[in-house]
Amino acid sequence: MGTTEFQSGRTFVFRAEHDSELVQSITKFAKEKGIKKAFFTAIGAVKRAKLGYYHQQKHEYITFSVESPHEIVSCIGNISLKNGEPFVHAHAVLADEKGNTEAGHFFEGTVFAAEIHLQELVGPELVREHDEITNLSLWRM
Amino acid sequence: MGTTEFQSGRTFVFRAEHDSELVQSITKFAKEKGIKKAFFTAIGAVKRAKLGYYHQQKHEYITFSVESPHEIVSCIGNISLKNGEPFVHAHAVLADEKGNTEAGHFFEGTVFAAEIHLQELVGPELVREHDEITNLSLWRM
Amino acid sequence: MGTTEFQSGRTFVFRAEHDSELVQSITKFAKEKGIKKAFFTAIGAVKRAKLGYYHQQKHEYITFSVESPHEIVSCIGNISLKNGEPFVHAHAVLADEKGNTEAGHFFEGTVFAAEIHLQELVGPELVREHDEITNLSLWRM
Repeated sequence: MGTTEFQSGRTFVFRAEHDSELVQSITKFAKEKGIKKAFFTAIGAVKRAKLGYYHQQKHEYITFSVESPHEIVSCIGNISLKNGEPFVHAHAVLADEKGNTEAGHFFEGTVFAAEIHLQELVGPELVREHDEITNLSLWRM
Repeated sequence: MGTTEFQSGRTFVFRAEHDSELVQSITKFAKEKGIKKAFFTAIGAVKRAKLGYYHQQKHEYITFSVESPHEIVSCIGNISLKNGEPFVHAHAVLADEKGNTEAGHFFEGTVFAAEIHLQELVGPELVREHDEITNLSLWRM
Repeated sequence: MGTTEFQSGRTFVFRAEHDSELVQSITKFAKEKGIKKAFFTAIGAVKRAKLGYYHQQKHEYITFSVESPHEIVSCIGNISLKNGEPFVHAHAVLADEKGNTEAGHFFEGTVFAAEIHLQELVGPELVREHDEITNLSLWRM
């Protein structure tokens, strides 16, 4: 198991704008603030979203659209560098009006309202690079 | 996108009491400790709960009861000021004995056992006020 | 409600190794680093897993296996001492290729890939002991 020790940097709490795309909003926020590594959570609601599942044998993402308003019941993610730029990796659980869930890798979501708590990390570089075994971009450690 | 930068305040780890109501317990805890803004997560189990979904067109919450024991698989929330008082906003994923989920805005839950990790934030005010577009109480930023 | 105030210790970000068991990996990590109390989240994917539900009347865990690859959409957990050793308590939401979820107490999972953010806590002891009411090991407070 690889490991790296970091220190806490800045703490941000912010809302993503109504009708913005959530992953892009967080990425843009990171670029504007010079955030290179962070951990975050979010709750709120989306008008629609695109989630995904990584097929572990085929080594590719299967994506599916959620074409109706859903609560963002859980969104857990992190920011690290990929090709030199801040890259958001997030997973989310969405719920409809009956409490039924759809969940997976969070590719995109049109924000109805979203509250984000982001903890910047400072210390060594946290960089994604191609991993042979999984064909994913994983942290170099 | 609005934004605010905060610093980390006190860190609390605590259990909610058996048979207490979880949202009230966290609110009471915040008031007793003088916590005005915070981020928290919780895991545990409830005897019953009330969850909700915000109808994005009707601009009102639809609520539904979960009238049997469930695991609290995820609870992510925050505390900020609403009408001058600490206000808890939390979302939760609950699961039954088969692993089936119900999820949404967490209105209330009767605690069987609950473990809470709460990070206080210090810095600028974090205040909810009425938002015209969504008819929700969102952070003023 | 019992309560304890802590300070932030070290912050760790790490990957669990491909084909390792996630709960064991985090436990081993805690032991190697001398971590006695912490809070963590994880996202990633498992090849298979074992989840559980605590039956609140029978006072025992019901476990169920998830025998196919799933995303780890949410994993929230903590570390405290049980019988003098670091003990991991975690809950997880898993999702399949259609976004359907299975969730509960996280007993074990074979890692495909997993990214963990762990915040050590320092301060008073955080120790689990038998609780009469629930028959669980809860924090002494």
